Amino acid sequence: MSDEVILLAHGSGGKLSHDLVERLFLRHFDNPTLLQLDDAAVLPMPGMSGPAHQPPRAGQPANPRLAFTTDSYVVSPLFFPGGDIGKLAVCGTVNDLSMSGARPLWLSAGFIIEEGLPLADLERIVASMASTAEEAGVQIVAGDTKVVDRGSADRLFINTAGVGVVAPDVEMSGDRGRAGDVVLISGTIGDHGMTIMTQREGLQFDSPLVSDCAALNGMVARLLAAVPAGSIHCLRDPTRGGLATTLNELAARSGVGIEVEEMAVPVRDAVRGSCELLGLDPFYVANEGKLVALVAPQAASAALTALRAHPLGGEANVIGQVTADHPGRVVLRTALGARRVLDMLVGEQLPRIC
Amino acid sequence: MSDEVILLAHGSGGKLSHDLVERLFLRHFDNPTLLQLDDAAVLPMPGMSGPAHQPPRAGQPANPRLAFTTDSYVVSPLFFPGGDIGKLAVCGTVNDLSMSGARPLWLSAGFIIEEGLPLADLERIVASMASTAEEAGVQIVAGDTKVVDRGSADRLFINTAGVGVVAPDVEMSGDRGRAGDVVLISGTIGDHGMTIMTQREGLQFDSPLVSDCAALNGMVARLLAAVPAGSIHCLRDPTRGGLATTLNELAARSGVGIEVEEMAVPVRDAVRGSCELLGLDPFYVANEGKLVALVAPQAASAALTALRAHPLGGEANVIGQVTADHPGRVVLRTALGARRVLDMLVGEQLPRIC
Repeated sequence: MSDEVILLAHGSGGKLSHDLVERLFLRHFDNPTLLQLDDAAVLPMPGMSGPAHQPPRAGQPANPRLAFTTDSYVVSPLFFPGGDIGKLAVCGTVNDLSMSGARPLWLSAGFIIEEGLPLADLERIVASMASTAEEAGVQIVAGDTKVVDRGSADRLFINTAGVGVVAPDVEMSGDRGRAGDVVLISGTIGDHGMTIMTQREGLQFDSPLVSDCAALNGMVARLLAAVPAGSIHCLRDPTRGGLATTLNELAARSGVGIEVEEMAVPVRDAVRGSCELLGLDPFYVANEGKLVALVAPQAASAALTALRAHPLGGEANVIGQVTADHPGRVVLRTALGARRVLDMLVGEQLPRIC
Repeated sequence: MSDEVILLAHGSGGKLSHDLVERLFLRHFDNPTLLQLDDAAVLPMPGMSGPAHQPPRAGQPANPRLAFTTDSYVVSPLFFPGGDIGKLAVCGTVNDLSMSGARPLWLSAGFIIEEGLPLADLERIVASMASTAEEAGVQIVAGDTKVVDRGSADRLFINTAGVGVVAPDVEMSGDRGRAGDVVLISGTIGDHGMTIMTQREGLQFDSPLVSDCAALNGMVARLLAAVPAGSIHCLRDPTRGGLATTLNELAARSGVGIEVEEMAVPVRDAVRGSCELLGLDPFYVANEGKLVALVAPQAASAALTALRAHPLGGEANVIGQVTADHPGRVVLRTALGARRVLDMLVGEQLPRIC
């Protein structure tokens, strides 16, 4: 890789991102937790069962475990309809913990600020983080601030890391999808990405676009309570790379095929319209308040009911199923009944979306 | 604060940094853990004693607790004698955990990369993080990569967050210093800051400057094992703002005075020389592999012996004592026997030092 340089597409969440993770990070940071490639690392609770790195022995009752995750936020613009970089940074990390089945407890916040940022902007963002954290029931317990000279960063970047607790009977991971599982989505796709995109392009639509940025821990708690333990096999929030990329990750990790009914996937008219205008596909556009679940078939109906009963899940739907056919591949059945492969995002559709 | 903007000095670790933390972050992120203002948040172990936010009741045996911390690294240049941004990012967070008395276990790593960074540079940094983590006995279990367009960041910023476990009998905090305590330092001051500074200025010296960047968890473990439980009252690593700022923080938090013997503080000749050349005071220059301890007087001798027996502590020394006089103030006794107040860093001595 002697002459290679980092491209925007390395941060897309798509194919080049995956290559970078596999070629570089997994090769050097080699440990079983990171290799699991879930949204959060799930770790033994230190001090509960001997050495920290040792899982409980077979036959012993399972202990609660710790979940730990991190994400940096570089979204531009800093403020957008439905949120801002601060709300995004809290929701994103709360959601990554939630997708591992954890109850989020504590967040850290690391600020990298460009010299010259108006203090009033920073205060508005910090206030937004505080109220978002309070609503989600998490505390921001650790922080750090770095300031760099003008031109060395673009206004403000925020990193949040998060710690949560995974109940003993929760066992979810990207590799637990099984043929027969039902694929659920908690609502419309593409809202966050198209909101950012149209803000940046200065486009106006009749029905305004609003980011779906939201903390999903409440919804996940209701979902887990509504179904028998173990019947939610995988949870993911389809952020960078969109629904198509997330489904491809799950298909690859679980070694299964996934079939999706295009007509069953909810898309707002304004999102569809702006996507057509800009030549984008909503299946590849980022979401910041949606989850995808692979659910055991006998629990699917209860799971759907639980999602729809939640304020954030009114448009939840069954969008497909997991198959033993074409492992690792996602196939879309279009409105016209045709079948086409829905690949992972290639290249960079939209930089600095989150 | 309507017209105010962020200045470089807000990131200095000195007075303006403290103002920002108090006026903005503590006001909005209001919780007892953050108010403690230690290098890491110390939290109840979730699932061990009822609700996660509830400390054990009085009279109950203490449980191990969780420590959680974060820091972003924006150092320029990325590579310097004695380390690089990756080594710094691992050591810094390991050290913040160690200063709370925690045994560091797990780190997360969030990368913000400017488009165009040579992949070979990134790989060298990632390899350095991996080997530093391995030496320190911690695992990097979660990660994130964002890429921003050319000009929106300066090559590479890294955030690391860390989780560790605090043993039941360890109780340290910046507010636990007591009159009579002995002040120890684990070695020479100013090495990291002057290394970065002279690299940036292109200065050459006869005896080369090398950053002291190192993980201190091994040294802290030996220190804690060498003295009776509870006799190490405060531990801090004097990073941004240097030894003077750290001592001022401890004096203010504990409501005590601190007296320091200038001649007892070890400073390398090359550091002293380059400081004189550039008009800097080593007491305000950042360290990345040193600790300051406030120790109960009866344990001071054992603590000093333990520090000196460690490979990183050969030049450890007693540098002063905690007094009931002049609470909140640090007083330096100079080589000539004069006494002067050693204030917190004001303004920005050296941006992007870590």
